[in-house]
Amino acid sequence: MSVQTLRQFQEQYQEYAKLNVFNQKPKGLYEPVDYILNLGGKQLRPILLLISHYLFNDNLEKAFPAAYSIEIFHNFTLLHDDIMDNAPLRRGKPTVHEVYNTNTAILSGDVMLIYAYQFLVKAGTSENLAQLIEFFNEAAIKVCEGQQYDMDFEQRNDVTIPEYLLMIEYKTAALLESAMKIGAVIAETSPENTYHISAFARNIGIAFQLQDDILDTFGDPKKFGKKVGGDIAQNKKTFLILKALEIADSVQRELLHSLYFGTAIDEKVKIAAVIDIFNELNIKRIAEERKKTYQNIAFEHLAQVKTTKEKKRLLTNLAESLLVRQK
Amino acid sequence: MSVQTLRQFQEQYQEYAKLNVFNQKPKGLYEPVDYILNLGGKQLRPILLLISHYLFNDNLEKAFPAAYSIEIFHNFTLLHDDIMDNAPLRRGKPTVHEVYNTNTAILSGDVMLIYAYQFLVKAGTSENLAQLIEFFNEAAIKVCEGQQYDMDFEQRNDVTIPEYLLMIEYKTAALLESAMKIGAVIAETSPENTYHISAFARNIGIAFQLQDDILDTFGDPKKFGKKVGGDIAQNKKTFLILKALEIADSVQRELLHSLYFGTAIDEKVKIAAVIDIFNELNIKRIAEERKKTYQNIAFEHLAQVKTTKEKKRLLTNLAESLLVRQK
Repeated sequence: MSVQTLRQFQEQYQEYAKLNVFNQKPKGLYEPVDYILNLGGKQLRPILLLISHYLFNDNLEKAFPAAYSIEIFHNFTLLHDDIMDNAPLRRGKPTVHEVYNTNTAILSGDVMLIYAYQFLVKAGTSENLAQLIEFFNEAAIKVCEGQQYDMDFEQRNDVTIPEYLLMIEYKTAALLESAMKIGAVIAETSPENTYHISAFARNIGIAFQLQDDILDTFGDPKKFGKKVGGDIAQNKKTFLILKALEIADSVQRELLHSLYFGTAIDEKVKIAAVIDIFNELNIKRIAEERKKTYQNIAFEHLAQVKTTKEKKRLLTNLAESLLVRQK
Repeated sequence: MSVQTLRQFQEQYQEYAKLNVFNQKPKGLYEPVDYILNLGGKQLRPILLLISHYLFNDNLEKAFPAAYSIEIFHNFTLLHDDIMDNAPLRRGKPTVHEVYNTNTAILSGDVMLIYAYQFLVKAGTSENLAQLIEFFNEAAIKVCEGQQYDMDFEQRNDVTIPEYLLMIEYKTAALLESAMKIGAVIAETSPENTYHISAFARNIGIAFQLQDDILDTFGDPKKFGKKVGGDIAQNKKTFLILKALEIADSVQRELLHSLYFGTAIDEKVKIAAVIDIFNELNIKRIAEERKKTYQNIAFEHLAQVKTTKEKKRLLTNLAESLLVRQK
């Protein structure tokens, strides 16, 4: 039997999601759930879960509800994060709290979190259910803690790079890690394989977030789908600004400080001035090197995973398409 | 061995909660969790869970994490409901979104929901975990759906009494039912006992909510802890107003309609006018009779539960103290 293609995973996943669409009553609660689940995201997390399972076990049946669970959880976090960030757009379309209202966005998000567990239970057996929930909860708690650190960092001007890396590990990488861990556990593979595939996902996740930081400032606005310079405009602590503050000379540092922490100035002027300093300091290249480091660690772990070369190629292809797109 | 007292259940529960206090980092995330869990609620749901377990099994060890889980879940719903209702006070103290802010209240609520599952898993065994989560989720989903119906009802002027009763069954009674069901499952009692104790809790829950409606309009403000007449001021569809609209003559109905659905008038005038019509129609007594009906059904189910008289007395005492207090 030939190896499944990425597209096949996506199609199978979408078929499962379609069979389990949220169209029940009350409409006010479930319509927003259906709305956000169909905004056309990459469905990266469920695909990673399915591939992780497939590396060790061809029978994907039990993996689909877990994949759906992870995607529902991820979209729950987007829904609530968008309220907290007061974001008007998600994937180029109006956010749930804009289309409906904040109360709806809160409550529909809550019920999504419950359904994430509902589908996870369907994936479990009496032997592995406690373990699945444990891995799921570990990530879910980290995602909340990461979001809190992210909000805390907005109020602080002394954030360090290690603190920042922990934050993105929690906020972004933990869920990718959990997706692949859960896929591996359902496939009943060895603890060694589970360990290495989890580490692969975590490091890819960190690389992915670093890339996101780079694209927010240096990306092509047409391809990126968000406003370029948004992080700078919002005084977000990203790898770029933290690294710049670390290696800047005293003049540059003072200027960055006043741009980020001083009195408000025109947004376009501010973004351009910060990017000028980034360019002087070669920040884009430094960030890309750091991203590459995490990417390499990820592939070292993948090399340790015991499965066929053909199956592994699925992950190298997927990771490379994620990490080089839009450059 | 003599039967435990209600106070002993409460003390043991509080001891468990104290050992599992939320004092971890980040503070911004967990301090609000600790704050709401210590606002001094009745802890009715965990106590019901513990008693339900105790009816069939003296060894409460496995029941404590489940009791804590239910209380964390309940407080998560209060936290998010208070945002949605824009409520300034909870149990006479400032609500979480007032003390901290709305974003904090959203995110801390989210992490509480995850921890509710975390503690539920601790209560489970490989045999019963899937069942525990199923019962928990059933209630959790109903609570969200009930809250949505409650919000929907604010926008409608054609809510029926059966719709209202379904809403309070979902929003309030389902969690009491789930608490006692989970206690019974952990105690490994018969399906018959589980059925009757669940039905007891559900009916007590509906009676309890009807009482809440009565107290909101006719209660003693000093004992009630909330502003009397709040439901009327907010145009809440309660049993009282729905019954009044049903049995009113055309003059009274028109007046109620214009008070509830017409142009805004002075709040105190409105509350007094609505209460006048309630009194003309004997609404308080009708509501109390309906409450008594649910209470009686509850006790009929309790009579079918197979355990000792002494243990049952715990529940009759508790239910009666809940349902006659403050009259």
